Amino acid sequence: MKSSPDNYFVLKSIGIIHTPYTTNAPNQSTEKQEGDFRIELNKELTEGLFRLDTFKYIYVFYFLDKVIRKNEMQVTPPMYPDKVGLFASRSPNRPNPIGISVVEIKSISGNILYISGIDAFDNTPVLDIKPYFNELDAKTDANTGWFNPEDDSDHFLLHLKGIPHQHK
Amino acid sequence: MKSSPDNYFVLKSIGIIHTPYTTNAPNQSTEKQEGDFRIELNKELTEGLFRLDTFKYIYVFYFLDKVIRKNEMQVTPPMYPDKVGLFASRSPNRPNPIGISVVEIKSISGNILYISGIDAFDNTPVLDIKPYFNELDAKTDANTGWFNPEDDSDHFLLHLKGIPHQHK
Repeated sequence: MKSSPDNYFVLKSIGIIHTPYTTNAPNQSTEKQEGDFRIELNKELTEGLFRLDTFKYIYVFYFLDKVIRKNEMQVTPPMYPDKVGLFASRSPNRPNPIGISVVEIKSISGNILYISGIDAFDNTPVLDIKPYFNELDAKTDANTGWFNPEDDSDHFLLHLKGIPHQHK
Repeated sequence: MKSSPDNYFVLKSIGIIHTPYTTNAPNQSTEKQEGDFRIELNKELTEGLFRLDTFKYIYVFYFLDKVIRKNEMQVTPPMYPDKVGLFASRSPNRPNPIGISVVEIKSISGNILYISGIDAFDNTPVLDIKPYFNELDAKTDANTGWFNPEDDSDHFLLHLKGIPHQHK
């Protein structure tokens, strides 16, 4: 049994994400964010978008190229009093800084996808786009893990989804 | 506006997936698959699993290192009569062969995660593990895109989820 393969993989940008966030992005995406959110796919890949507009939601995979890798295995989530493991969080400071968001497709025009809000910096490189299938990806019996929604669910979700709000 | 950045990114294996599939894997994962499904995280990352066991579901990201890249921008899904764009499919033959599965955590012991069925070959390298948050990831209003579930939904889902079955 190989316990620790020393493998490296090279990925390439297949497009870029355009967002209003040049210096700051929320912690997680939300469809309620206002603004100009677009994916500009590399033109030679446009044919790969055929019939993607039949889906309501897609997964967008992107490379968090503006994140400083901290190499900390435990993190303190926003609004949470304790530390949790890095892999039990959605922190961007990961060994492989791959971001993922489920976003809504508004429309597709050529190689441009107009999408709902996404928590990425402007000019973030795209790694992949996949359709989100109801039967495969929507786990209605999923939970919220270490966070107890009874504590302050609404407020926590504002942070998790990156919705701007005021603190008392 | 940069339309086609020529960027490459280097990722590394953070562990390996153990499955019963040495020569063949189903098209998509299913929690109903029987067998030994485990993720063996690199030991130095074990601390990053703290409190992950509070989640019912996780995302597993992996590198499809056994896939031959075909560079075809349109594919014919199983049981489907027409072609669809590569990005409107879950085909493994992608510009960046990143696989993703939503799997259930059965238990965690040290650096080993015992999980529900996953559609990966044995010894597939892991790129990331993220918690699946109900409020963030479970889109109950998602659809099935180009596939019309009224056509032959149950049979299609057997294919999509990779459940072994007989054809008439």
